[in-house]
Amino acid sequence: MNQSLNPTLLDNAVAELSRLPGVGRKTALRLALHLLRQDVAVTEALAGALYKMRSEMQYCKRCHNVSESDSCPICSDRRRDGNVVCVVENVKDVMTIESTHEHRGLYHVLGGLVSPIEGIGPQDLEIDSLVERVKSEGVEEVILALSPTMEGDTTNFYIFRKLQDLPVKITMLARGVSVGSDLDYTDELTLGRSIQQRILFSSTFSQS
Amino acid sequence: MNQSLNPTLLDNAVAELSRLPGVGRKTALRLALHLLRQDVAVTEALAGALYKMRSEMQYCKRCHNVSESDSCPICSDRRRDGNVVCVVENVKDVMTIESTHEHRGLYHVLGGLVSPIEGIGPQDLEIDSLVERVKSEGVEEVILALSPTMEGDTTNFYIFRKLQDLPVKITMLARGVSVGSDLDYTDELTLGRSIQQRILFSSTFSQS
Repeated sequence: MNQSLNPTLLDNAVAELSRLPGVGRKTALRLALHLLRQDVAVTEALAGALYKMRSEMQYCKRCHNVSESDSCPICSDRRRDGNVVCVVENVKDVMTIESTHEHRGLYHVLGGLVSPIEGIGPQDLEIDSLVERVKSEGVEEVILALSPTMEGDTTNFYIFRKLQDLPVKITMLARGVSVGSDLDYTDELTLGRSIQQRILFSSTFSQS
Repeated sequence: MNQSLNPTLLDNAVAELSRLPGVGRKTALRLALHLLRQDVAVTEALAGALYKMRSEMQYCKRCHNVSESDSCPICSDRRRDGNVVCVVENVKDVMTIESTHEHRGLYHVLGGLVSPIEGIGPQDLEIDSLVERVKSEGVEEVILALSPTMEGDTTNFYIFRKLQDLPVKITMLARGVSVGSDLDYTDELTLGRSIQQRILFSSTFSQS
């Protein structure tokens, strides 16, 4: 695009917006022009909220979830069961699991998965702090809730090896057919696992 | 989503991001969490660029294009032909037409199209200022480059009526088959117009 056409202010805004994931130059331009058409207060509120979030947001010292103080709302909630810790990849997964209302314990956010291709090793993740936590807090159960991918499985196995000698029960998410999906669309690996790990029909009645 | 899970800072940022066109709550959350993972300088640069753009950007007094001063770079460029004015809907269309390098005149940005459904009348657009400009600047040709939609056609016709008694040539974009497209995929209306308004084969040789 012609330099003389894009005043530097607009150029800068488009360049910064394009750095966001999933936002290309065309989308960035559309967003910038949208903001130009709106009242100045709209942009002030957006810029202010982003800056304030980034500069004031902290991470929980215990579970590494996002928080506005040293201790996140979940860790601070005395009604939650501190004996059960659910291990997740990132902050978004905490929200996803919370939305199921099935986990009443605490969390531990790893901050990623072991991935040799991306150069992420166990030392880059919050694994040592998990082991420390299991020891010092006397955690009874660790639920591994990582994605069912190669990276997730690698990370699961690494954590299992680190925790296996401690007096803690290690569980993982059940793998099986999706609720509401058609068997025709279920891949063979998942279907195979769901047969191997079949459950008693009567056990589905006792769900709370 | 559980209130206790989304600290207010994150909530605010997500809410503001969701107000952008095409950005839903899920995308907004993804963008906010992305910014939280990046260095604080990334968010500072983004928020700063947006705020600076919105607060300092002006509109050209002559053609209503975005500008960093009273007169936009195109109107200030003495090499452009002031006798030919291309009428466009918005700032983005100026950029699109500039990218073709086929227009060497100036622009006039209407700021929208006449649309009774959306309650936009001719008085809401920069049409009077266009008529004024044609009179005072002695413009020789006005190119109507609006979208080939009902709103575009209505606006075209309104402008034509306003300008028809002035000594100015009024032209509009050619309508016909898209370059590189297959005739099978061209709609009948466009194909019909392209036959009615067929051009001399030899005229395509003389293009610069």
